[in-house]
Amino acid sequence: MSEFISKIRTIQWIDDHSRMVDQTVVPYEFKYVDITSGQEMFDAIKTMIVRGAPAIGIAGAHGVVLYAQELKKQNLSREEFINELLKKADYMATSRPTAVNLMWAVEKQKEVIRNSKSDIDGIIEELKQNGIKLENEDIEINKRIGDYGAEVVPKGATILTHCNAGALATVGYGTALGVVRSAFAKDKTIQVFADETRPRQQGARITTLELTMDGIPTTLITDGMCSYFMKKGMIDMVVVGADRIAANGDTANKIGTYTVAIAAKYHNVPFYIAAPLSTIDTSIKSGDEIVIEERSREEVTHINGKIICAPEVNVINPGFDVTPHELITGIITEVGILKPNYNESIKNAFMN
Amino acid sequence: MSEFISKIRTIQWIDDHSRMVDQTVVPYEFKYVDITSGQEMFDAIKTMIVRGAPAIGIAGAHGVVLYAQELKKQNLSREEFINELLKKADYMATSRPTAVNLMWAVEKQKEVIRNSKSDIDGIIEELKQNGIKLENEDIEINKRIGDYGAEVVPKGATILTHCNAGALATVGYGTALGVVRSAFAKDKTIQVFADETRPRQQGARITTLELTMDGIPTTLITDGMCSYFMKKGMIDMVVVGADRIAANGDTANKIGTYTVAIAAKYHNVPFYIAAPLSTIDTSIKSGDEIVIEERSREEVTHINGKIICAPEVNVINPGFDVTPHELITGIITEVGILKPNYNESIKNAFMN
Repeated sequence: MSEFISKIRTIQWIDDHSRMVDQTVVPYEFKYVDITSGQEMFDAIKTMIVRGAPAIGIAGAHGVVLYAQELKKQNLSREEFINELLKKADYMATSRPTAVNLMWAVEKQKEVIRNSKSDIDGIIEELKQNGIKLENEDIEINKRIGDYGAEVVPKGATILTHCNAGALATVGYGTALGVVRSAFAKDKTIQVFADETRPRQQGARITTLELTMDGIPTTLITDGMCSYFMKKGMIDMVVVGADRIAANGDTANKIGTYTVAIAAKYHNVPFYIAAPLSTIDTSIKSGDEIVIEERSREEVTHINGKIICAPEVNVINPGFDVTPHELITGIITEVGILKPNYNESIKNAFMN
Repeated sequence: MSEFISKIRTIQWIDDHSRMVDQTVVPYEFKYVDITSGQEMFDAIKTMIVRGAPAIGIAGAHGVVLYAQELKKQNLSREEFINELLKKADYMATSRPTAVNLMWAVEKQKEVIRNSKSDIDGIIEELKQNGIKLENEDIEINKRIGDYGAEVVPKGATILTHCNAGALATVGYGTALGVVRSAFAKDKTIQVFADETRPRQQGARITTLELTMDGIPTTLITDGMCSYFMKKGMIDMVVVGADRIAANGDTANKIGTYTVAIAAKYHNVPFYIAAPLSTIDTSIKSGDEIVIEERSREEVTHINGKIICAPEVNVINPGFDVTPHELITGIITEVGILKPNYNESIKNAFMN
């Protein structure tokens, strides 16, 4: 497995609380915040102190532990404790609607609660250990994704990515940027083009920071530029993350991904999704069933607190879009690269 | 001709100087600056106090008058005056490389200089009158473009535009937004979606301002969102301006235009260019010959003076891209809508 060491640890359970990089202040500050209550975790997810589908999954799992610790103080019976905690877990899962990893990780904690034979202290300890296990697995899974993905990165390739599916979107290695890290470990001549990713600029703020921290050559471009560089033959492949993948391969990811995928198709540039199996929601047949979060107008009208447009303009701000499976060259997972027909390759991936 | 009255007058010759809206401070301020010397005009074009291909054409024409006024003070012979002024005119034409209207308007002034039988005062007066004539013609030409374009705008249409090809890119009506104004004069149910247009945000800063000033419903979106709304069937057509059009119809326009054109093709949304014939450069066969201006890294890395990324990231910042003719449904000009085959329709437009 890849020996690449990233400097970044996005989220980690420490004793009785969760510690995470505050991504709302990146790249101006690189600071950690301690989250000590369930409601604080709910808010941290909602306000995007933590973001990125796999990272908010872990955050949700930690949030359930925090709620458990709070409920313990209420001197409930074991049954009351379990009932209340399951409700709190369901509430935690509603903090953001699009990324399925959050629901998946909360469900993993609910299984621990339901299956436990222990007393309240024992349940809390089991939830804590399960949270830490999910953290460690996330890094392992990312490295496997990275290593499978690196096999399809040409020598000296320039890889375009959109938004941030990096160490800072996961526990500490990345999905799309995990592919970059694994490829860079083998070939120091690869480089990354990072889309700015308006409105929240995760590409500019987060991807450029984490890649330059790890010494990987990175060029920042604005979202409209991708086709210009593809036409010039300067982009060898696109790799992005995912927030939810349907059974047919349709993939919800950060708004703007679909536009990049269309441009890639037009220029015959391979377009890959990199995501753990936990991002695949086999309960939905196609992307039409994915709920797209609408976010605030201020994300579009303001940058760094300053308005950039006529104040009375209308805004629509979908947080995600769906890239249809026919634009996707492959889905890089921890069990290998899934290829079309995705209905079959996804089904097989879950059977193994 | 359309009766739509815009509140905006972008550039105007007044007595002995040029007055223009300072577009570097829009939308925070809507103020006029007086440009009183040739070098000031060169800098105003270069720093984008005035921008938009037709508007910088007029600015260039005004700049030649300003240089003429300065040279008069040097007590040169008529021949020396003419030689020096022709050199200054050529210098003025180099203030920005991509938009052909600048070269075209400066050439119009050079014709006045070369053909004049007058003394120095007479030449200056002729240049001044020619500048004013070009101003008035620009508005007339825009209204004709607008009226031809309005014929292909469906009732109740939502029109997507990129950058600003509006009143503030011209003398006072607009090319792409001239089409919008003429269509809105007939049908109050049309509306505009405006791409933000990073890096310089002309869509957010300028298009939303001028359209809301004129009471036209406008929705601001980020550059990556166009495909999302096209897929939802919310965009009926795209109309953008142009900085230079080759003999085969290939069109240079603000960076990001090409990406929108590819998305429009993918969704079968009609994609129109709106531009005066003066934007067509029949001396070049295809877009491959168009020089693309590279602009500063700060336009990408900073917004409103604040850095938005890791400071050590690389940047490439092409100011324009070229949309190939095969993605263009029609080119809306003052003599009608040119359709493929553009080599023929463009040739015919210049013969009439």
